[in-house]
Amino acid sequence: MATASEAALSLHSINPRVIAAEYAVRGRVPKRAEEIENRIKSGEKYPFNKVMYCNIGNPHKLGQHPISYFRQLCSILFYPDLLEEKAVSSLFPLDIQKRARSILAQIPGGIGAYSISQGFPFVRNDVAEFITKRDGYECDKDSIFLTQGASAGVSVVLNLLIASENDGCLIPIPQYPLYSGTLSLLGAKEVPYQLDEQSHWSLSMDSIKKAVEDSESLGVHLKGLVVINPGNPTGTCLSEENIKDILFFANAHKIAVLADEVYQTNIYNPAEKPFVSFRHVLKKYSNELKSVVLFSFHSVSKGFVGECGFRGGYFQTEGLDQDVHNQILKLQSLSLCPNVMGQILVDLMVKPPTPEDESYPLYLAESTAILSSLKRRALRLSAALNDLPGCSCQPIEAALYAFPSIKIPPKAVQAAHDKGHSPDEFYCLSLLEEEGICVVPGSGFGQKDGSFHFRTTILPREEDFDDLIHRFKEHHIRFLEKWGAEQDVEKMLEEEKKEENEQKDHLHYLSHLKSSKPSCLKKNSSDNFM
Amino acid sequence: MATASEAALSLHSINPRVIAAEYAVRGRVPKRAEEIENRIKSGEKYPFNKVMYCNIGNPHKLGQHPISYFRQLCSILFYPDLLEEKAVSSLFPLDIQKRARSILAQIPGGIGAYSISQGFPFVRNDVAEFITKRDGYECDKDSIFLTQGASAGVSVVLNLLIASENDGCLIPIPQYPLYSGTLSLLGAKEVPYQLDEQSHWSLSMDSIKKAVEDSESLGVHLKGLVVINPGNPTGTCLSEENIKDILFFANAHKIAVLADEVYQTNIYNPAEKPFVSFRHVLKKYSNELKSVVLFSFHSVSKGFVGECGFRGGYFQTEGLDQDVHNQILKLQSLSLCPNVMGQILVDLMVKPPTPEDESYPLYLAESTAILSSLKRRALRLSAALNDLPGCSCQPIEAALYAFPSIKIPPKAVQAAHDKGHSPDEFYCLSLLEEEGICVVPGSGFGQKDGSFHFRTTILPREEDFDDLIHRFKEHHIRFLEKWGAEQDVEKMLEEEKKEENEQKDHLHYLSHLKSSKPSCLKKNSSDNFM
Repeated sequence: MATASEAALSLHSINPRVIAAEYAVRGRVPKRAEEIENRIKSGEKYPFNKVMYCNIGNPHKLGQHPISYFRQLCSILFYPDLLEEKAVSSLFPLDIQKRARSILAQIPGGIGAYSISQGFPFVRNDVAEFITKRDGYECDKDSIFLTQGASAGVSVVLNLLIASENDGCLIPIPQYPLYSGTLSLLGAKEVPYQLDEQSHWSLSMDSIKKAVEDSESLGVHLKGLVVINPGNPTGTCLSEENIKDILFFANAHKIAVLADEVYQTNIYNPAEKPFVSFRHVLKKYSNELKSVVLFSFHSVSKGFVGECGFRGGYFQTEGLDQDVHNQILKLQSLSLCPNVMGQILVDLMVKPPTPEDESYPLYLAESTAILSSLKRRALRLSAALNDLPGCSCQPIEAALYAFPSIKIPPKAVQAAHDKGHSPDEFYCLSLLEEEGICVVPGSGFGQKDGSFHFRTTILPREEDFDDLIHRFKEHHIRFLEKWGAEQDVEKMLEEEKKEENEQKDHLHYLSHLKSSKPSCLKKNSSDNFM
Repeated sequence: MATASEAALSLHSINPRVIAAEYAVRGRVPKRAEEIENRIKSGEKYPFNKVMYCNIGNPHKLGQHPISYFRQLCSILFYPDLLEEKAVSSLFPLDIQKRARSILAQIPGGIGAYSISQGFPFVRNDVAEFITKRDGYECDKDSIFLTQGASAGVSVVLNLLIASENDGCLIPIPQYPLYSGTLSLLGAKEVPYQLDEQSHWSLSMDSIKKAVEDSESLGVHLKGLVVINPGNPTGTCLSEENIKDILFFANAHKIAVLADEVYQTNIYNPAEKPFVSFRHVLKKYSNELKSVVLFSFHSVSKGFVGECGFRGGYFQTEGLDQDVHNQILKLQSLSLCPNVMGQILVDLMVKPPTPEDESYPLYLAESTAILSSLKRRALRLSAALNDLPGCSCQPIEAALYAFPSIKIPPKAVQAAHDKGHSPDEFYCLSLLEEEGICVVPGSGFGQKDGSFHFRTTILPREEDFDDLIHRFKEHHIRFLEKWGAEQDVEKMLEEEKKEENEQKDHLHYLSHLKSSKPSCLKKNSSDNFM
C-alpha cells in the first residue's frame, strides 16, 4: 500500500460523508471478536474456544437450518436438468417439480438473465396477493419493487427523499443503524425521537412532536419518518392505536412514512401483541389519510426463512404519484436488477406450499419448529437478563433481539472515558474478552443520555442457551464486583437464595418434576468452556 | 394512486439529482419495446412477431446457455443433500462434488448466511491468484472487495471519491451510462473526454488534457478518471501504450483511475488487439507511478459466463491508503454483504476446472463454443453495418457491442426535432416500430456534436443473424428513402451489384463453394417475419 504522503487518496480528500457514516452492527466490538477468533485459531489461550456472535441477525451462521422447500426449489432452478433424471426427480416432491417448471416458464433466459429492474411481474403479483390477504385490502403489483434485501430498498427510498442538506428524517431512538448510516452518507439531518422504554418501547407521540418542533426551529425540512415495527433493536410490537396516531401525524405534516416491517413473522405473543401492518391501518382510515405516502419494507433474511445470504426483499408503496414512481424505476435501473435468486425466494416466502401439497408437512414442521424455538429463546433470554442485578429487559414480543438496559458503576464509566470508549462499549468489550460473547453497544443504536444498553440476538442454538446465559451472568457479576457495585451483587444473590428456597418448597410438592433451577446457578468451574 | 395535489411527494419535492440522472440502456426505446411486445401478445398486428432485444448485454435472455460446471456446483450448494444420494451424486463429476464440499466447509452457515462485508476470504484469495497470474505481479487478497455486480462496485467507489458538488470525474464519450447516472445522483460534475472513433476509438490524450484544462478553469476538482476497456459501447481494446499514457497522466494529476474491465475475456482478435489490464501496466512502471490509485472492476455478467442474474463481481484496488481502505469496508458494511451466490460464482469464474478434472472437457467445449460464436457474430455484424450506406462501424475487437456511426438525412433530423426526439432516438424508434429491433440511441452514451450512433449488442443467436442483418438493412434503406437520401441508397445498390458480379466471377472459379451472397440481399417478402 502507498504511504500517506504519496497517495492520491487520503482521509482528507475522500467524501467526508463516508467518514461520518457509522455502522455499529459491524463496528469495533465485532472487529475485535474477529481478531480474538483468529488468535484462538493460531493457538492463543482464551477462556473460551470460540466467539458467540450475538451482534447480527444471521440465523444460519448460528446453526439454524434452511427450510428444505426453498432449497429444493432453488436447486432445480439452478440446474433444471435435475428434472430430466428420474432417479433425481424422485427426490423432489411433485409440487416442487411442478412449481419449478412454472417458475422457469416465467423467467425467459432462466436465473442467469437480468430481469426487468422493478423485478419479475409474477413475483410482484404473488407479493401483492400476500399483502392483500394480510391486510384485507387489495394491493397492486405495480406498487411493489423487488430489492436486494430491505437495506437496498431503504437506500433507494432515502436517495429519493433527500434533496438537500437541510432535509431531514425522523428516526427512532434506539434505531437500526442502517438509517443513521445512510442518512449520514446522503448528508441529511437525523432527527431523533425517543421510544418509551418503560411502556414496551412504544412510540411516544409527544417525543415525535417535540422532535418536529425542534427541527422546524432549526430550519430542517422533514421528508421522512422511519418506524421499525416489530422493533429492532427493541424486540417489541406497536399497537394499532399507536400506528394510527403516527399515520395521522404524518398525514398532517406531509411526511413520508418508511415502515421497516422485516420482522413481521417473528411474533411471539400474537394474542396480545400481534403484528399490525402500517398499510392495514392506512387503508382502514383511507378517507382521512389522503396525504400519506407509505413505503413498507420486507426481506427474506428474517422470519423463519433467515436466508440472509440471498439478499432478497421488496418495498411496497402507497399514495405515490406516478411521476415519482417512474423516478424510482429509473433509480432501480441504475443497478440493473436485484439478483434473480433473491427475487425467487421472495416469491417462495410469500407463497409457500399449501396443505394439499406433498411438500407441505415438512415445510410446516420445519417452520413451526424454528418459530417455537425462537419464542422459547426469547422468553428465556429476557427472563435471564432481568435476573441480573441492575439489568432490565422489556419482554421480547417480536423480532430477534433483546435490548436490555444496564446500570454501569461510576468507576467503570470513568475507566471507559479514560480509555476513550463509551461506557456501554467498555462493557461489551469486557463481555467479549472474558466470555467470548459478541454483542453491540447501545450507543450504536442510540439511547437516552445517561442510560446504557446492549443489543444481543436471541439466535444462539437452543442447546447453547444454558451456556450463553451462564456466561452473561458470570461476566455481569464479575464486572459489577470489579467496578465497585458489590452491594448490587449481594442483593441479587440474597434474592436468588430466597427464590431457590421457595422453589424447594414447590419441589417438595411437585416431587416428580425435575429441578428447574437454572444451570447457571450451579456451582461449577468454567472448565467446560475452555 | 394519490392525485398530485394531495400527495406528500411530487417531482417538486423529491431529490432533484434523481430526476437529473438518466439511464439510457433502459430508457425510452426499450420501454416502447415492452409496450409493443405487450400489444403483440394481446393480438395487435406488427410486421414481426417478437422484439429482438439488442439494447442490453443480457446473453442468457437471448438464448446463450449457461456453463454446466457453474450450475451443477451451485445446485449442490443450495441443497447439499444432493451429495448424500448415490443416484444423484453420480450425475455430478467427482471434481464438482469435491469442490462443493470444499466450498461448503469454507462458508459456515452455508449460502444462507451473511458473509463478512468484504466478501469470503477464500474467494478473494482465488481472485488474487487469478489476477497475479493474469498480470505477472503478485496481488493481495485484501485489496479485493466482492460486490453485487460491477455496477455496485462503481457506485461504492464514486460515493467514496465525490466529496462536494465541485468534484468531478472524467468520463469517456461515448461512455456506459452507469457513470453519468451515478455521477448525477451524487451531484458531481461529469467531465467528458472524447474517444477517437477514426482510430479504433482509442483514448486521445489531447482530449483528456483539454478536458482537464476546461474543468480547471471552471473550478472543478477532478477526483476520478473512468476508462472502459474493452470498450462499452465501442467494442475496442486500448493498447498498452495508450494505457501507459493514461496512468502517467493520472499519476501527475493525482486523479484516481477507475478501470472498467468487465469485458476482459470477450476478446476477438487477441493476436493484434489483446486485453492489457491497467494493473499490469501500473505494476510494470511502478517506480514511476507512485501516486496512482487504481480501482479495477470485473463481473460474472459478461465474458462467456454471462450470468447477469447472479449480480456478482469485484473491484481490486492499488495504491490505497489503509485508512481509505477501512472507509470502503464501512461503506460495504452498510449493505451487509454481496449476495453469497454471486460471490461463489466469482470464485468459479476465476478458478475454473483444470485439464485433470473430469468436468474439464465439457467446460472447455461450452466456453469455447460461446466465445467463437461471439467472434463470428462480431465479424458478421460489423461487416453488415459497414455495408449500409452512410453507416460506418469500427471493427468489433472485444466486448458485446457495435456502436456504428449513422448519417441521418437533414429531413429526418428536422422531423425528430419536431417530435421532441433526438435524431438518433428517432432512428432507433423507427427501427423498433418497423423491424422490432431494440437498440440504444448514441445520445444515451454521448457522441460528438452532429454525429449520430446507436449501440447494438452482438447477442442475438447465430441462427437469427441472417434475419437480424436483413432487418437492419431493410429498415435502413427505407429510412434513407423516406427521408430523402435516395441517392445514397442507389449508390449502395450499384456497389452491391458490382460486388455481386465480382463474386459471380469468383464463384465460377470456385464453383464447389456455396454462394456467399448474404441472405439479406435476396429478394424476399418479410412474410417470414410476421
